[in-house]
Amino acid sequence: MMEILVDTALHGGRHQVVRHDSGITQCPMEFAVFTPPGEGPFPCLYYLSGLTCTWENAATKAGAQAWAAERGMALVFPDTSPRGKGVADDEAFSLGQGAGYYMSATKAPWAPHFAMDRYITEELPGLVAELAHVDTTRVGITGHSMGGHGALTLAMKNPGQFRSVSAFAPISALSQLPWGKIALDAYRGDDPDSFALFDAAACMRSHGWNGDILVDQGQDDPFLDEHLRPELLADAASEAGIELMLRMQPGYDHSYWFVASFMADHINWHASRLQ
Amino acid sequence: MMEILVDTALHGGRHQVVRHDSGITQCPMEFAVFTPPGEGPFPCLYYLSGLTCTWENAATKAGAQAWAAERGMALVFPDTSPRGKGVADDEAFSLGQGAGYYMSATKAPWAPHFAMDRYITEELPGLVAELAHVDTTRVGITGHSMGGHGALTLAMKNPGQFRSVSAFAPISALSQLPWGKIALDAYRGDDPDSFALFDAAACMRSHGWNGDILVDQGQDDPFLDEHLRPELLADAASEAGIELMLRMQPGYDHSYWFVASFMADHINWHASRLQ
Repeated sequence: MMEILVDTALHGGRHQVVRHDSGITQCPMEFAVFTPPGEGPFPCLYYLSGLTCTWENAATKAGAQAWAAERGMALVFPDTSPRGKGVADDEAFSLGQGAGYYMSATKAPWAPHFAMDRYITEELPGLVAELAHVDTTRVGITGHSMGGHGALTLAMKNPGQFRSVSAFAPISALSQLPWGKIALDAYRGDDPDSFALFDAAACMRSHGWNGDILVDQGQDDPFLDEHLRPELLADAASEAGIELMLRMQPGYDHSYWFVASFMADHINWHASRLQ
Repeated sequence: MMEILVDTALHGGRHQVVRHDSGITQCPMEFAVFTPPGEGPFPCLYYLSGLTCTWENAATKAGAQAWAAERGMALVFPDTSPRGKGVADDEAFSLGQGAGYYMSATKAPWAPHFAMDRYITEELPGLVAELAHVDTTRVGITGHSMGGHGALTLAMKNPGQFRSVSAFAPISALSQLPWGKIALDAYRGDDPDSFALFDAAACMRSHGWNGDILVDQGQDDPFLDEHLRPELLADAASEAGIELMLRMQPGYDHSYWFVASFMADHINWHASRLQ
């Protein structure tokens, strides 16, 4: 059962925000869907958000729907973690609620709810299909920061589900970088052999990708050198023989001013690959 | 002296947020400016926001900078009122801080600070000129809701300053509608003869407008029948011989989903008239 929280016209299409009880995260979850004008079936792009975000940040600030309307593409904006009183949390903004890292936790107190990878690949597509006439053979995925990590890792692990992938300022190698190391220890520290499955650079080497990848990164991003490290992604792509178009953007930071500035490029890039 | 709060690249141009001590509102004020790519001088569009908003709502949620970058147009996003501990306020969202109505108060406790009309026409242009290379002979004005009222009245009273005007869901006739009547009584109740100067429909009759006017209005706007009443504007335009393009938009509400959906049309409309 989905409860419709918002349902309004947007760019000639339709913007819907939904709440539902998730069987996978075991709590109420919200997400937003944009359906472009027309009948469909539409290609569809999932946008995974970064630390501290909900569906709302990208849906309101990235301007994505304008370009998706032009290209006839549906958009899905999931939340970044399970939430609520019964869900474990941490004082750090980079752990707990708002920081799901698109992985399934195996350790207490996170294991019962934190499973954003399975939520997005196993539960969400069926719900989206009830709201928008989506062509499930033409689905892409992108994301920002922690969500860029999510987009890259989920795409490479599920190539039958996602046919195109791009990222904005992604965390390039979760198991090598500070935020990610803390999260991997907290959520899956009892299974360190699995860490590489939740690391974009490592997934490039282990899983590869049958296609090209677009990554934009602001050169004035304050997290660039410590938490994002796009050169780790570039090295892995080169070793794995993956065509990575990594664009360093001078003057841009880590905010939605940056994401909005290159959103048209990403929408067009996915639209071309999902035609 | 302006303090730069934000200065970042955006859509190939530059987004700046500034704080300064206003000589007119007698308090610190913030506003945002977008400068498109290139050298200028650029035509410039002022966007006046609605009740409860600051510069931030439109700057982050309307997607205006994307289209302004394409058309080589600068944008200015002022706040909607004076603010701060020493500034009078009211519990109602439609009076006091966040509700300046683009008029100068004559009554206590509002008179010392509330003067958003003079702030925008007399003080802001000089500050904008320090940030962006603007052509002061090619300036337009638009706004949403209370800001639509502001754009229409300021343009008609200052035709030498603003060459093009449009509005999103404007309050059509402040002196006839509930929010506006309360504000006029509070801010200028000692001078009821002046109310017509702060009423867009009345200004059409008294001042006229040498040009056309674009107004978009969502048909599902919950404030349509009680607070906005676009038919009052249409009647006045008809009597005054002003060419008003009033577009009723089915399915759209009063939110920034509506504003964002028609922002490209408004930017293009102003750009054509400011060429």
